[in-house]
Amino acid sequence: MTDKKYVYFFGDGKADGVAGMKNLLGGKGANMAEMTTLGIPVPAGFTITTEVCTYFYEHDRKYPGALEKEVKEALGKVEEVMGARFGDPGNPLLISVRSGARISMPGMMDTVLNIGLNDEVIKGLIARTGNERFAYDVYRRFVNMYGDVVLGVGPRDEKEHNPFEEIMDRKKKECGVKLDNELTAEDLKDLVARFKALIKDRLKRDFPDDPMEQLWGAIHAVFNSWHIPRAIAYREINNIPGNWGTAVNVQSMVFGNMGDDCATGVAFTRDPATGENYFYGEYLINAQGEDVVAGIRTPQPLNRAKEVPEGVSTLEDEMPDQYRQLDEIRARLEEHYKEMQDIEFTIQQGKLWMLQTRTGKRTAASAVKIAVDMVNEKLIDKKTAIMRVDAEQLDQLLHPTLEPKAEKILIAKGLPASPGAGVGQVVFSAEEAEEWASDGKKVVLVRSETSPDDIRGMNVAEGILTSRGGMTSHAAVVARGMGKSCVAGCSEVNIVYKNEQFTAGDVIIKRGDWISIDGSKGEVYKGKVEKVVPELAGEFRTFMDLVDEFRTMGVRTNADTPHDSSVARDFGAEGIGLCRTEHMFFKGDRITAVHEMILSDDEEGRRKALAKILPMQREDFEGIFRAMDGFPVTIRTLDPPLHEFLPQTKPEIKELANSLGVELSELEQRIEALSEANPMLGLRGCRLGITHPEITEMQARAIFEAACVVAKEGKKVHPEIMIPLVSTTEELRKQKEIVCRAADEVMKEKGMEIDYLVGTMIELPRAALTADQIAGEAEFFSFGTNDLTQTTFGLSRDDAGKFLPMYVKEGILPRDPFVSIDEDGVGQLVKMGVEKGRSARKDLKIGICGEHGGDPSSVEFCYRVGLNYVSCSPYRVPIARLAAAQAAIRKEK
Amino acid sequence: MTDKKYVYFFGDGKADGVAGMKNLLGGKGANMAEMTTLGIPVPAGFTITTEVCTYFYEHDRKYPGALEKEVKEALGKVEEVMGARFGDPGNPLLISVRSGARISMPGMMDTVLNIGLNDEVIKGLIARTGNERFAYDVYRRFVNMYGDVVLGVGPRDEKEHNPFEEIMDRKKKECGVKLDNELTAEDLKDLVARFKALIKDRLKRDFPDDPMEQLWGAIHAVFNSWHIPRAIAYREINNIPGNWGTAVNVQSMVFGNMGDDCATGVAFTRDPATGENYFYGEYLINAQGEDVVAGIRTPQPLNRAKEVPEGVSTLEDEMPDQYRQLDEIRARLEEHYKEMQDIEFTIQQGKLWMLQTRTGKRTAASAVKIAVDMVNEKLIDKKTAIMRVDAEQLDQLLHPTLEPKAEKILIAKGLPASPGAGVGQVVFSAEEAEEWASDGKKVVLVRSETSPDDIRGMNVAEGILTSRGGMTSHAAVVARGMGKSCVAGCSEVNIVYKNEQFTAGDVIIKRGDWISIDGSKGEVYKGKVEKVVPELAGEFRTFMDLVDEFRTMGVRTNADTPHDSSVARDFGAEGIGLCRTEHMFFKGDRITAVHEMILSDDEEGRRKALAKILPMQREDFEGIFRAMDGFPVTIRTLDPPLHEFLPQTKPEIKELANSLGVELSELEQRIEALSEANPMLGLRGCRLGITHPEITEMQARAIFEAACVVAKEGKKVHPEIMIPLVSTTEELRKQKEIVCRAADEVMKEKGMEIDYLVGTMIELPRAALTADQIAGEAEFFSFGTNDLTQTTFGLSRDDAGKFLPMYVKEGILPRDPFVSIDEDGVGQLVKMGVEKGRSARKDLKIGICGEHGGDPSSVEFCYRVGLNYVSCSPYRVPIARLAAAQAAIRKEK
Repeated sequence: MTDKKYVYFFGDGKADGVAGMKNLLGGKGANMAEMTTLGIPVPAGFTITTEVCTYFYEHDRKYPGALEKEVKEALGKVEEVMGARFGDPGNPLLISVRSGARISMPGMMDTVLNIGLNDEVIKGLIARTGNERFAYDVYRRFVNMYGDVVLGVGPRDEKEHNPFEEIMDRKKKECGVKLDNELTAEDLKDLVARFKALIKDRLKRDFPDDPMEQLWGAIHAVFNSWHIPRAIAYREINNIPGNWGTAVNVQSMVFGNMGDDCATGVAFTRDPATGENYFYGEYLINAQGEDVVAGIRTPQPLNRAKEVPEGVSTLEDEMPDQYRQLDEIRARLEEHYKEMQDIEFTIQQGKLWMLQTRTGKRTAASAVKIAVDMVNEKLIDKKTAIMRVDAEQLDQLLHPTLEPKAEKILIAKGLPASPGAGVGQVVFSAEEAEEWASDGKKVVLVRSETSPDDIRGMNVAEGILTSRGGMTSHAAVVARGMGKSCVAGCSEVNIVYKNEQFTAGDVIIKRGDWISIDGSKGEVYKGKVEKVVPELAGEFRTFMDLVDEFRTMGVRTNADTPHDSSVARDFGAEGIGLCRTEHMFFKGDRITAVHEMILSDDEEGRRKALAKILPMQREDFEGIFRAMDGFPVTIRTLDPPLHEFLPQTKPEIKELANSLGVELSELEQRIEALSEANPMLGLRGCRLGITHPEITEMQARAIFEAACVVAKEGKKVHPEIMIPLVSTTEELRKQKEIVCRAADEVMKEKGMEIDYLVGTMIELPRAALTADQIAGEAEFFSFGTNDLTQTTFGLSRDDAGKFLPMYVKEGILPRDPFVSIDEDGVGQLVKMGVEKGRSARKDLKIGICGEHGGDPSSVEFCYRVGLNYVSCSPYRVPIARLAAAQAAIRKEK
Repeated sequence: MTDKKYVYFFGDGKADGVAGMKNLLGGKGANMAEMTTLGIPVPAGFTITTEVCTYFYEHDRKYPGALEKEVKEALGKVEEVMGARFGDPGNPLLISVRSGARISMPGMMDTVLNIGLNDEVIKGLIARTGNERFAYDVYRRFVNMYGDVVLGVGPRDEKEHNPFEEIMDRKKKECGVKLDNELTAEDLKDLVARFKALIKDRLKRDFPDDPMEQLWGAIHAVFNSWHIPRAIAYREINNIPGNWGTAVNVQSMVFGNMGDDCATGVAFTRDPATGENYFYGEYLINAQGEDVVAGIRTPQPLNRAKEVPEGVSTLEDEMPDQYRQLDEIRARLEEHYKEMQDIEFTIQQGKLWMLQTRTGKRTAASAVKIAVDMVNEKLIDKKTAIMRVDAEQLDQLLHPTLEPKAEKILIAKGLPASPGAGVGQVVFSAEEAEEWASDGKKVVLVRSETSPDDIRGMNVAEGILTSRGGMTSHAAVVARGMGKSCVAGCSEVNIVYKNEQFTAGDVIIKRGDWISIDGSKGEVYKGKVEKVVPELAGEFRTFMDLVDEFRTMGVRTNADTPHDSSVARDFGAEGIGLCRTEHMFFKGDRITAVHEMILSDDEEGRRKALAKILPMQREDFEGIFRAMDGFPVTIRTLDPPLHEFLPQTKPEIKELANSLGVELSELEQRIEALSEANPMLGLRGCRLGITHPEITEMQARAIFEAACVVAKEGKKVHPEIMIPLVSTTEELRKQKEIVCRAADEVMKEKGMEIDYLVGTMIELPRAALTADQIAGEAEFFSFGTNDLTQTTFGLSRDDAGKFLPMYVKEGILPRDPFVSIDEDGVGQLVKMGVEKGRSARKDLKIGICGEHGGDPSSVEFCYRVGLNYVSCSPYRVPIARLAAAQAAIRKEK
């Protein structure tokens, strides 16, 4: 083993690390080093690398031998720069220990502040600051936090309250005060003693007074916190690999809570919700950073760039010099990083210290606006702008918002913390949100504030409403990251957990009642408000135009109706990649004719029923052809097993028997005869068209009759008929023959020529394996990766729920293969299909129409293997367009 | 198009063709040419090639332009050689027109004899033969046959009798005679007139008198008959491609029915049933060839090589010169072809003519004996001998025979036409045989004689019993080809179709009654007689020893019990390739513990139930290890979905609820919760072992405990634990971990070391595609080609019955892919799995354990792609051994 460096120092304008070392130092550590080098005031400190974390978990939670020495040395440098010594009662240095992973996981892991205090050191702190009350406030916070985080003293079961909070509450009652800051130095000193007694009682040993023991305890706790459940849950939701590990940052404490010449705040260099280019942030006078984020006190705005409520002051008003310095730093950071930054600062006795800078999380709308603005500001080029927006995140912009014209009963107004509409039934806990959602209910999670433990519940909610906390509170940050609508700090909402209700003015909302929230306006409405479909407009449209400058792969849509076709076209779809004809079979009363067809004894009977269905299908196709004027429309012939069209429950069967005028027992027998052991692998797809050629014939007729009608109107029609579930060339040949015969007949009858293609789905392993043979008949391929994934894995999507989640959780599969294409297995077949197909037919047009067509990483894969287009649901078309452009740009590099 | 030759002449010692031209001239034509060149007396004639047949079907049943001229020229040469002219009333030549495909399809296609007769020509025939009765007998046969075969005059519906036969029967009644040969010349002349009148009445036109028109009509009819249903059915059963086509042989007639100095017969150069080396055949004095084959008169034996019933004469007795000449020809043909021949001959007024020689069909026993004998006689080498036996046909030798010691009630004795035991319920028609068999019943088909239309019914019967016909009758020949037991010419059996019964002595057997036949002895028993398993003995063992000299690939067996293991070992299995542990779960009362396990709420409950199952599984494994002493035993961990172990019907569920002491509704809910939409693709295979690790743990424990017990007895134990349905390396890794842990524990407890391997099934496309990754963990691979075929095709075996037969019939698939491996698709994955697997682990042991392991063509494929072994059911082990040896020999060439 070579000599690795485990500890990276930063302070006084010099740093061992740089911003590019995020994998090793984590985001926080790397940026702290970078800011230090830029000459920005950062309290000195050092970073313990992520490699130590990896070592820690691979060696039974032990450290590499060299670590202790390196920590000691770095601590010495910090003491030198800060002019104070750790554990020195004469001139004490206090330090913080924080996590810092490659990608920010806000609030998920542990933090310990104010380390280095004991009954001796406190004297020095009092002497140096001349502020006994402050010193004991810091001390009691330290013992509380260390006892909780490092020593694990907390509630012993679900019913118990936090024991530190209980002691605090009791103390306040004893003193007859309401707020923490009404307690005196003496009171706080007593609290320290009581906290230590609690710890001793619980652990049967004294609180550790040795500062070095405190430091190592804190480091250990932070490394341990990489593997606590809420951190694991966060990584799962955000697809962060568990083996990345976290770095640990050890840094000098600075205090925003030493008095009214102190403050602490968080800010974004632009508005993270809208993307507007102004300095956006919040601060609190005389507070520690945690107070801003935790949402316990509602903080004040940094400036008056946006309207400020009457009587509210700003940092610009109160500390103009420090504000100006901060604003300059803001400009330097954006200029340097060429990216919107999320920063944390503390002002200690008038001196500004920067504690964090990182790429700011933002809503999709904000991401798009910032990308477009930064191009206009010539800060970044177009390609960079395109790469800046997470394709998956665009989904937020495509989700419905509340119908502006709907009648609404406004019951409260809070902060517009995360845009979008949330309509659901009220629940008051994350657990309940999960339960109700798993029963298929839509819920809005209502909490006074949220905590990292609520992650899963937030993820399944339609929206989040909190009564406390600001725009940078936990609820707001997490909701924006998830693309959930959120109204935060809505103080008009008064939650009474034990009654399972909240009041807003004189309105009472109980658990299970419906509410609607508008995260863009911060408004809360009673009842269910209608939602509307979003539009491609403004910066979003500008951005998508930019995207299309670099996109080379086509994007189509999966649509079965004229309405869906129009929506998709508005979103930029360049044709239909999959029109499923079976959905049309259910519409209105045509299911009756479908039943007749299925239950006929012979071909003649089936033909009679099909003749009734033909004009209805033709009408559907006409609408779709009109909507897609000029673009190709890929229509798949009937795919699902016929028994899917038949009723399953006894009363439904009875009803059908009556309406058909047959005996119930006879009908039951017929249904039984049609049932299958494994319908996925049964009589479906082209197998239907081969055993019942008259179905394919009818469908082909309907397609070409519709094409003639619409072409006659002067529109351009390009039908592409797609045969599903082909496993042998001969199947395709036989079905193609039927389609071409029907096409010839119709075109002859109408005296018209329609350009059309006949191709096939590649959705079975055998089709991919023999794609060279199949391409002899197929004029195009479309990969049906849903079924291809099912057959390649031998995995029924309907049944996988029993074990697939566990597979992903335990790392047996890196991701759900139905969401992102499995490149190793299924992807290999896709690649093979493309190569073999083109070896037989050089310019074979190839697309994909499985749900993977709307998943960014799968779209990138499709681009890499050379598909001509992807096809996805209408609302994912912009996502696919962006992912395709990003894939092209990535390849150029 | 180059000038093709369509017509090949043969006659008078010269021939255009040779024996090697079977593809072009068909078997009959090629051999006729070969015999002519050898100087053997063959009536002159010519062959129209199979290419004309192909042309015929590709050009709307028209002929190539040059054909007519070539036929005319060849006919001229025939006339010259035979010294007679076609259609010449002065010196008439009569000809036959027969089919002749590449592979013999006995009786499947049409034949027309005696062509060239009309009311003028008949005079010449009478004058030249001086035998008016003969001439008119020929004439009435001709008109009958031509009317039936070429003009299509027959019964107009199912109830009608053959109209020619009806006229004949009426005539005999009018004349007061019983047999055809009692009719006078005048009677026969009248029959000719009546036949012609029937034809005119039916077709509204005269019988064609022009000999050339007759000739072309016959040629046309023979080409047409390539596509009649029974020919298509025969090709399906025998896997003969439909595009091979038939040749047509036009040949001078010779007559075995001109008087008592005439005869006709068929013979085999060795006994086709037993393989014994003596001249075996049958003949009839004064008859046409058809009379022997059709089984209407029971023919006489050629010689006294075998005991002959009293009063029966032989050809050797009656025509010693001709017999000697024939016996010489027999020797020459065997010497020339180095193969057992099936020959036809006719003696016309003392002159011997050969009409056919071809490789003789034989039973498996006969094939084996002839192969071994010919090696001993130094006629062929060992490799040739091995290639001479059809591996699939060996199946016959492995089927049970009647238990010799069973008490039997013998009711009749006939000819031992095809060996083996047939035990089933009596049916009297081929249609009924098909119906009953499709209901899962075992049937014996009882007919006075069989015809080519009965093929399908014969194919599904357990055995065939006929009351008429000899050892070369249709029933006998076809049954031997199919490996069905057959007792033929059993004249003691008196069938009364209309009563649906037969009598044998005073025993009455009705439709549906059980009988048992012994085809090796020609015996018929009343009731169900027990069957016994055959042994590898005598020539069969000698032959298999020969086979193993050339075999390089291993052969194992699929066996789940000690008994099956022993049987397989006796048949030469070199280990177990697949031991399915789930079958053991059903045995005796252990299913109760299995139910407990499945229905437990938690791991603890499951472990309790599994603890009960463990000792029972251990016991099974002990028996299997003992039986396989010295050989590897591959044990698959639990594979089927758990719901397969639960009852499905209401009463069964009720019973289970009672026995478990739970509410019926609760149990129903549990069963419902376990049910799956597509169980094939659900929670099964290693997914069970991953979600319920305790099951794998128990099974591994049972295996290693058993291994220790048996090893302690001094036996050699080599367990190979096989994890099913693996699709990712991680699945295998996790299961392997459990198995190895259990192995370590048990070996430590017992203080023993057991050599073992842990490997995986490759039965999902993804496993084959990622075989390089999987081989990192797997110590061996075994291809599960049943499931691999299901997933590669997306085809559920349970549901494919609705369309797979049609797929094979219509040529969408060349063969059922569950019988013979689909080389293009599934085979590609197998090849890939082998290559990728060995790229990661050079000497990876690879086998196959799907049912393909016992299919000769699949075994050949396995050899080609380099598998180490195949594994198949015990009774197919010798087949696999032979197929493996043949593959090795074929590769050498």
